Amino acid sequence: MNIGFIGGTGEEGMGLAYRFALAGHACIIGSRAIEKAQAAVVELKEKDAALPITGATNIEAAAAGIVIVTTPYSAQEATLPPLAAALAGRIVVSTVVPMAFEAGRASLVAVPEGSAAEQEQALLPQSTVVAAFQNLSARKLLKGGPLDADVVVCAADPEAKKQVMSLAEAIEGVRAVDGGPLPNARLVEGITVLLVAINRAYKTQAGIRITAIQ
Amino acid sequence: MNIGFIGGTGEEGMGLAYRFALAGHACIIGSRAIEKAQAAVVELKEKDAALPITGATNIEAAAAGIVIVTTPYSAQEATLPPLAAALAGRIVVSTVVPMAFEAGRASLVAVPEGSAAEQEQALLPQSTVVAAFQNLSARKLLKGGPLDADVVVCAADPEAKKQVMSLAEAIEGVRAVDGGPLPNARLVEGITVLLVAINRAYKTQAGIRITAIQ
Repeated sequence: MNIGFIGGTGEEGMGLAYRFALAGHACIIGSRAIEKAQAAVVELKEKDAALPITGATNIEAAAAGIVIVTTPYSAQEATLPPLAAALAGRIVVSTVVPMAFEAGRASLVAVPEGSAAEQEQALLPQSTVVAAFQNLSARKLLKGGPLDADVVVCAADPEAKKQVMSLAEAIEGVRAVDGGPLPNARLVEGITVLLVAINRAYKTQAGIRITAIQ
Repeated sequence: MNIGFIGGTGEEGMGLAYRFALAGHACIIGSRAIEKAQAAVVELKEKDAALPITGATNIEAAAAGIVIVTTPYSAQEATLPPLAAALAGRIVVSTVVPMAFEAGRASLVAVPEGSAAEQEQALLPQSTVVAAFQNLSARKLLKGGPLDADVVVCAADPEAKKQVMSLAEAIEGVRAVDGGPLPNARLVEGITVLLVAINRAYKTQAGIRITAIQ
């Protein structure tokens, strides 16, 4: 399965692309500026020149089998509408957390649609949006080595949810957990804000596990 | 340390009282109706007649060293103001989750103050509110046996936070985690709603652990 990243040149996009490429998935890092995408690819290939990662424009990345949106929340409303036609009929994964910082403290930003994921669905009405990966530490993804974290996956479409859950478990040390319908993404996005506070208090890159499920 | 429960006759209050009594803390289950409190005590003492648990009115429970609010969210605004004077100067723990159910699905209810915990602080301006315990399964608390769960504790006051974190770890299998300032309680309350969805999908009583902290 090839995987495209919209706005893939940040830590989150690069970290996920690195992990999925390690698992053998061809990854296409998209950017508005192809030079930025190519620079990200060069950086990732320093880890391993054989990684199946290429750079492209966002519209090219939008043609992949599964497309993952890793833009900042503030860029989502401008970035996605021009890609809506290209993304029609595809599974599009929302990793975005609507977060603001003030005096070093993170807070969850109100989203008119409820969550960043529901906004993405509203901007891409012909795509099947699945929310996932918000709680993974981008820094740990990029660093390599096994994670110790669950990925809570929220979606309306059970088949799309299943595909993304299976994709998540390609990352070493990750277990996917069914988090229910798409509006629950708001709660998962909130966990990231909580983890930022915990990271600050404990000087770490924390994750979450759900207990008592198999 | 004796511990009072405001609205302590529900599953959450009874479950926490059971666990703290097991750990040797004298627990006072409060209710508007003393008969209801006494019935809850009788029920808990069936587990072990020697448990240090007594029943009382809410106003009597409010005189304890630490007071835990376990009313439903919908009852909080009516229950707390008459107790504000009695609770002045005390640590008051918010366990409340503002949750609604529709067609079996849980959602987080908007709270004008931001979170149930901040509403509690607004209703009890002379108390020190600490948010904790929202994510523990009441059913597992009541059942007994070790939990596998973290309790994320949010508060403005570092000393009160530390006391409640220490109290939480009196429950077998629980680790306390510093979740930052009180407004972060909103995020922790949201986790409970997510756990309800996970419980439904997996037919379990799930909890959370924060990974990569010590």
